Amino acid sequence: MADTSTRRIDYKEIKNTLYGVLLKNGFSKEDADICSGLFTDTSLDGVYSHGLNRFPLFIENVRKGFVKPDKQPTLKQSLNNFEKWDGNLGPGNLNAKFCMDRAINLAREYGTGIVSIGNSNHWLRGGAYGLQAANQNCIGICMTNTMPNMPPWGGKKTTIGNNPFIISVPHKPYPVLLDMAMSQFSYGKFEILREQGKMLPMDGGYNKDFELTNDPDQILESMMALPMGYWKGSGLAIMIDMLVAVLSGGMTTSEIGELEAEYGLSQLFIALDTEQLSNVGLADRIIQSIIDSVNNTNPIESGGNVFHPGEQTYLRRLENEKLGIPVNPDKWKQITEL
Amino acid sequence: MADTSTRRIDYKEIKNTLYGVLLKNGFSKEDADICSGLFTDTSLDGVYSHGLNRFPLFIENVRKGFVKPDKQPTLKQSLNNFEKWDGNLGPGNLNAKFCMDRAINLAREYGTGIVSIGNSNHWLRGGAYGLQAANQNCIGICMTNTMPNMPPWGGKKTTIGNNPFIISVPHKPYPVLLDMAMSQFSYGKFEILREQGKMLPMDGGYNKDFELTNDPDQILESMMALPMGYWKGSGLAIMIDMLVAVLSGGMTTSEIGELEAEYGLSQLFIALDTEQLSNVGLADRIIQSIIDSVNNTNPIESGGNVFHPGEQTYLRRLENEKLGIPVNPDKWKQITEL
Repeated sequence: MADTSTRRIDYKEIKNTLYGVLLKNGFSKEDADICSGLFTDTSLDGVYSHGLNRFPLFIENVRKGFVKPDKQPTLKQSLNNFEKWDGNLGPGNLNAKFCMDRAINLAREYGTGIVSIGNSNHWLRGGAYGLQAANQNCIGICMTNTMPNMPPWGGKKTTIGNNPFIISVPHKPYPVLLDMAMSQFSYGKFEILREQGKMLPMDGGYNKDFELTNDPDQILESMMALPMGYWKGSGLAIMIDMLVAVLSGGMTTSEIGELEAEYGLSQLFIALDTEQLSNVGLADRIIQSIIDSVNNTNPIESGGNVFHPGEQTYLRRLENEKLGIPVNPDKWKQITEL
Repeated sequence: MADTSTRRIDYKEIKNTLYGVLLKNGFSKEDADICSGLFTDTSLDGVYSHGLNRFPLFIENVRKGFVKPDKQPTLKQSLNNFEKWDGNLGPGNLNAKFCMDRAINLAREYGTGIVSIGNSNHWLRGGAYGLQAANQNCIGICMTNTMPNMPPWGGKKTTIGNNPFIISVPHKPYPVLLDMAMSQFSYGKFEILREQGKMLPMDGGYNKDFELTNDPDQILESMMALPMGYWKGSGLAIMIDMLVAVLSGGMTTSEIGELEAEYGLSQLFIALDTEQLSNVGLADRIIQSIIDSVNNTNPIESGGNVFHPGEQTYLRRLENEKLGIPVNPDKWKQITEL
């Protein structure tokens, strides 16, 4: 997804720049440090759409008051290994990191920890909280709702969210990580391919006559992205909305859609401590054997690879650690001027 | 999916017939009652592929010793709201019902309950355990691995399972229920369409040259079904295999694939008590508002409907309760002669 006109910038320079912008926009030093780290890590891992490239929109939402940099989550309910928090419209990535920290702590105490939050904000890259759990030897499961941005299967209007769903499993040298939204492709992907004059490799949305198409231009005209797996991703998106809204007491996708912007999201974070529920040696062997069975599958593409979830992200991280993080010069200029 | 040559048979007649066959095959009266009920309920709900139609294969697996009708699960680990069981190769549907009962009991005590089982068997219809949780005012989440029956994305060989995933949410008059395997279509669907000389509505697998196709005949030749959402369903199937195997200490899809038949599966059951984690009135309003937002979406098909997960199953149940359960006469004859 890196643009051909990118330059590469060192991790520290990026993080320091974001840190400075956050300080100027009402973040405490501690929060600015964590928040700038999360944004930079996201670009480092090659998830460019939710790292630096989204930082200007994040700051715009802070300035408009949708994201409140001085707010912390407050506890609404605690029941054994379950906690329910109010996000008080604080920064979504800080709130999400906080919730996964709580889930991990509960998992240390009980074996498993389940934390919900309502009235929070876009968590940026969901995979970050999966990695956070996995790096503490916990299986992580995270889900969030979003504003309406996808039609339910068979429908003509975007009334469901593309509600991201994350599962992570601890492993060395890097965790196994699935981080997926419920749309087959992101709107960002449509924009990139349209600029390049390319078609999608398969249908990814509808044209204005509600016919499936692989033309990103037509999908951006209708703004009707296709759920992954057609009725299956549509169904999973609906269930995720129910789970996060019921368990947090927060807003549904439909309620978020009535606001002037996408804020006040509902989320769920689960941590399962593999040290207590399995044992690290056994878990490692099981995970490695599954990785091997996938990676050793003969590839369709001659000379290609069959990857397991999280592998390509890790390879991009290694490259970006070595060479610097690819940054679009226009976007970088925009960030330095924030 | 009901064959045109079906006749309709009353629920009680079917259940009594299956009950008799189970008694003759080593099941106790109590187990035969539960097991025949689960099979008949599955056909009643219109999930024909995993109800009566699969009963002869189930009995065959009992007779071959893969499914052991006299075995009960034994507890391997108990840690607060988490329990790990050994299925001892008992009947998969009885073991799964047992595990969800345990998860619901743990949820009553702790708010949430998480139960794993290894060394179990095919659970037949996964949705049954989702409904079981939802009918006790619990959100239910269930997952299982299977034998290898799908290629990972980009791969030439079936090395991952189509690992079903279930989420249910309590609601009246019927629970919301997502019950989906990780393949876009089932092999049973390919067989039905091939018999009817029909194509799939979209690509559902590969031909022998590893090209995507919507021709069920070519997919049945290659036996390479497509993961739903391409790389997304492939990734989710891999993660489910990791979760169920790590948390139960049981076999992986790859290990199951080395056996002479599909047995010894690993599974996970989660129950979240909405009475304690939310409140029934609030949860009901949230769920109803999400249902309404989906059902009220304008349909693409003129005069069509946009359904929410579990709605079509419920409508089939109502029809079958009224008219009797559609049964293929050949299959019925086969069952009565077991």
